[in-house]
Amino acid sequence: MDPKQKCVTCFAPGHITGFFTIHENDDPALKGTTGCGVVLNRGVTAKVGVGPDITETEIFLSGSRKQAPVTSHLVASLTCEPVRIESHADIPVGCGFGASGAGALATSYCLNDLFSLGLTQNELVEAAHIAEVVGGGGLGDVEAQAHGGIVIRKRPAPITKGGLLDRIVSSSFSVHCVALGKLSTKTTLDDSSMTGKINIAGKTAMNNLLQNPTIEEFMRQSRSFSFELGLLSKGAKDIIEAVENVGGFASQAMLGDAVFAIAGPECTDAVIRDTMSEFGTVFSSTIAGTY
Amino acid sequence: MDPKQKCVTCFAPGHITGFFTIHENDDPALKGTTGCGVVLNRGVTAKVGVGPDITETEIFLSGSRKQAPVTSHLVASLTCEPVRIESHADIPVGCGFGASGAGALATSYCLNDLFSLGLTQNELVEAAHIAEVVGGGGLGDVEAQAHGGIVIRKRPAPITKGGLLDRIVSSSFSVHCVALGKLSTKTTLDDSSMTGKINIAGKTAMNNLLQNPTIEEFMRQSRSFSFELGLLSKGAKDIIEAVENVGGFASQAMLGDAVFAIAGPECTDAVIRDTMSEFGTVFSSTIAGTY
Repeated sequence: MDPKQKCVTCFAPGHITGFFTIHENDDPALKGTTGCGVVLNRGVTAKVGVGPDITETEIFLSGSRKQAPVTSHLVASLTCEPVRIESHADIPVGCGFGASGAGALATSYCLNDLFSLGLTQNELVEAAHIAEVVGGGGLGDVEAQAHGGIVIRKRPAPITKGGLLDRIVSSSFSVHCVALGKLSTKTTLDDSSMTGKINIAGKTAMNNLLQNPTIEEFMRQSRSFSFELGLLSKGAKDIIEAVENVGGFASQAMLGDAVFAIAGPECTDAVIRDTMSEFGTVFSSTIAGTY
Repeated sequence: MDPKQKCVTCFAPGHITGFFTIHENDDPALKGTTGCGVVLNRGVTAKVGVGPDITETEIFLSGSRKQAPVTSHLVASLTCEPVRIESHADIPVGCGFGASGAGALATSYCLNDLFSLGLTQNELVEAAHIAEVVGGGGLGDVEAQAHGGIVIRKRPAPITKGGLLDRIVSSSFSVHCVALGKLSTKTTLDDSSMTGKINIAGKTAMNNLLQNPTIEEFMRQSRSFSFELGLLSKGAKDIIEAVENVGGFASQAMLGDAVFAIAGPECTDAVIRDTMSEFGTVFSSTIAGTY
């Protein structure tokens, strides 16, 4: 590499939302979601470079140049310098695994280091959250991704602006996933009859979870939430039923045509993986921030 | 084991405070510290058992029965049932590595599971924090230990009671430690001339860190803080100087007669370990919550 060029590589984890409620606000920093999800040990690695040969900002995902509105907005909010961003995701993109949030967060970490911005994690999370809202990505992933664990998002927005995060305490476990296809977060959230359903089902799920904050209850509430919304494809329903038939827990990754599952007390991870592999490629991850 | 007996095992990480400021309050939930420290991937594992043979609460640390005022208070605050607690620390105890907080937090996780208390992490952290304050343990460890990473404690107390945590964002690294001896948190904090010094030096260190929130700046501010207080033993000073002579960063683990160190840009972890091993047994840990 040219000695005048400099680059930094950072990672941010993926996140699967099980259920959520939307909190509208004209200020993108305050618009967000409450809900619950799991943070994965797989995610997005961003490499950000700067140098005399880089004269305009370019964003590549797995080698292909992208518009990437979320990351573009993030870069513009943190620096005037043109940068070259190369991201690699080891989670499916656009399927409910928080890839856009992970990409934005990883890029924010890189920019902070590359330009010695002197920002703390809370400040970078806020910048990434705003980029997600303005760019049409997720509405609560980055707060959870920066926190780690099985995150209960109790109040929306970054924690410096009144947001409140909590966690389900759990020993380590694996989550197994099959992505069947994409589901547009923007299109889904632009449908007001859908957002009405989301907010009713999301509140019920949260109230029930807080009575019994365990990973099993999270899976049960996520399942009820996803069946309530009716966004489940036939393929996703089939996988959920198959997992339940062997004693596991499964639900839809929000918002994606994708299923995530965990083993139950009477079955092993291998049984869950074998069951799911009949429907598509299974990827598995441990959960960040458990013991 | 007797089938009527049940037991649960949980882990909580150690924590090294680099600098801090004390916030007095008559309410133990609101009494606490602000400051900055690193959360370790080593800590305390607690095994908590309940059953007909256990008729009074007994606490063992590495096989020896202990009074353990912090853990005793925690148990009494969460359950009326007698329990048997066996803790094992893979960090030194009483030397500034947050062992009492880790023991309390790990025990709270066990009790939550064992008795299906239905508490979230924030609620367990608050119980452990109060036990620490009442029992004379640390004043900010458990919030950091539950959060993970390089934690900046910006406002004291649990986050449900107005506390605010932030992080220095960093790639993964190792911290190397030598424990020379114990230092009583209670005795030190009962000396009002010392607490005056702590609060002045702690505020300066925090202000400087927030100008440049990096791990190197954290180490520099921790070093200034520890030299300002004058609690450093001759042995600890010698280790700090030796580490600095080979290009590393080092400071005192608060509050203990112990040194923690990290490699600098021009030296390796092996050089730091070799240098420190001339003064005592070195233990090393990676930092939880980095990428």
